[in-house]
Amino acid sequence: MSPFEVQLLGTNSALPAFGRHPTSQVLTIQKYKYLIDCGEGTQMRFQQFGIRPGRMHQIFISHLHGDHFYGLIGLLTTLGLIGRTKPLDVFAPEGLEEIIRIQTKYAGGDPPFKLRFHVVDTEKHQLIYENNQITVHSIPLDHRVPTAGFLFREKPKDRKMIGAAIEQYGIPYKAIPDIKKGADFTDANGQIIANALLTEDPIPPRTYAYCSDTRFKEDIIPIIEGADILYHESTFQSDLIEKTIPTGHSTARQAAEIAKRAKVGRLILGHFSSRYENIESFAEEAKTVFPDVVAGVEGTIYQPLTGS
Amino acid sequence: MSPFEVQLLGTNSALPAFGRHPTSQVLTIQKYKYLIDCGEGTQMRFQQFGIRPGRMHQIFISHLHGDHFYGLIGLLTTLGLIGRTKPLDVFAPEGLEEIIRIQTKYAGGDPPFKLRFHVVDTEKHQLIYENNQITVHSIPLDHRVPTAGFLFREKPKDRKMIGAAIEQYGIPYKAIPDIKKGADFTDANGQIIANALLTEDPIPPRTYAYCSDTRFKEDIIPIIEGADILYHESTFQSDLIEKTIPTGHSTARQAAEIAKRAKVGRLILGHFSSRYENIESFAEEAKTVFPDVVAGVEGTIYQPLTGS
Repeated sequence: MSPFEVQLLGTNSALPAFGRHPTSQVLTIQKYKYLIDCGEGTQMRFQQFGIRPGRMHQIFISHLHGDHFYGLIGLLTTLGLIGRTKPLDVFAPEGLEEIIRIQTKYAGGDPPFKLRFHVVDTEKHQLIYENNQITVHSIPLDHRVPTAGFLFREKPKDRKMIGAAIEQYGIPYKAIPDIKKGADFTDANGQIIANALLTEDPIPPRTYAYCSDTRFKEDIIPIIEGADILYHESTFQSDLIEKTIPTGHSTARQAAEIAKRAKVGRLILGHFSSRYENIESFAEEAKTVFPDVVAGVEGTIYQPLTGS
Repeated sequence: MSPFEVQLLGTNSALPAFGRHPTSQVLTIQKYKYLIDCGEGTQMRFQQFGIRPGRMHQIFISHLHGDHFYGLIGLLTTLGLIGRTKPLDVFAPEGLEEIIRIQTKYAGGDPPFKLRFHVVDTEKHQLIYENNQITVHSIPLDHRVPTAGFLFREKPKDRKMIGAAIEQYGIPYKAIPDIKKGADFTDANGQIIANALLTEDPIPPRTYAYCSDTRFKEDIIPIIEGADILYHESTFQSDLIEKTIPTGHSTARQAAEIAKRAKVGRLILGHFSSRYENIESFAEEAKTVFPDVVAGVEGTIYQPLTGS
């Protein structure tokens, strides 16, 4: 099965602690890798985990708090130094281009590849990017500065040809693309062979929902409904619930509540406050509401649960 | 003896490699700590080496290439999060304030302490900062963008009282400050006791010269002459000397030549190109010209050589 997985490179909130780092993730879907957020030191995490920085296809930044983007300028500099020439698209709220361009200006000029910024409207749930494999929609979140999550969804795949049927019904090569799209096949004698005899259902499109940072926000539930994997921040546990409103964050229990009501396949927690040394207790709190939950571990690769 | 030492936090050039990091150093002189350059991940190096970020007294940035300052915005954010209220002075070439302020603006406002930027004129050798313990002078360097090194020099100390003399000559407490400044003492009988009988020479003022990044530049020699410690970049070894002019860097041999002619106490090499895995060979090359040289190791604390 083609890859669909996310590797966490940083699971901590703003203040690095207990060896945990600020937020960044690499999402691999089929042939491409997408970088989601890019906290300070992300390029060093790449080295640590053997990820080649040149492989990044697009970069998505959720908001302009430093623990989500301070590593971007260093990564872009490195991409220039290692000779990238392919254009790079960066999706982020208003302001990131200004921040990056002022730094490249003083450092002696633009990188040797085309750097294209796309402003994400953090108030709207809309399509912000697509290629032939996926769509990416913004997820409006509720934080202290304009913030959007991202919903990565595979496009529906073609139906899968049944190998034996090709021989049995003498299907020529050029007829296959239409049959994969669902067409019946008319053979040399004018007999119609139903598509159901020729193909099987494809793997259903898979979905990854990235929600960081945000207060508890019920209206994201219909947007992320049924996602195979939901990453939802949980900066605090319920003992510090009074901090969630002023800081613009969630508790593990609140993240689990969202996961349950959105009927997602699995929940990954992250963005842990540096007040907590033990992150397993985040998962324990969330499990009282939603069973398929993990407290994200840096370096670990997460896939959809089998059968989800 | 009061501390005078530098701890290297990053010894690599721009592209992190072989576990080496971009440039930053903590210089401790007597009671205070000064941060010199602040490459990406400096705050993580602080954690690794048990350095408390709140202890930094001033910050000095040599130039606006990212491997010398990308970690500053993250460190400033952290200082805010851990509750710094004391003002912080940052000395850097033109442009750094603009880069930092644009980021604090989008992140929701200035940090909770006063952040004061002081523009260093990289063309001039002049006093840029002093307190009651040290002076700091700029050292004009020759790189691809405006770049200054920094010369940290202790102020002359008071002469040291000879404990036994206080009793012997019946010196009252209030006379001591003048005697430490070099005054003779007149006792109750009107007899003049020469200062040489009462005091000893103080520790001579110590000097640290920081020179990164730069092409071979002879006219820094009179500025740094006799420094107890010279840190001089050596991005390349002589096999790649043809790269020094276009990139604006030096070889280990060139750094040693500067050290020898400036009669410094010891030379620390750093800013190694990621082409080189083995850094000991930098020291070997330099030793053919100047004996008291080390290839800087991250985490290591360097002091003046005894007797230098």
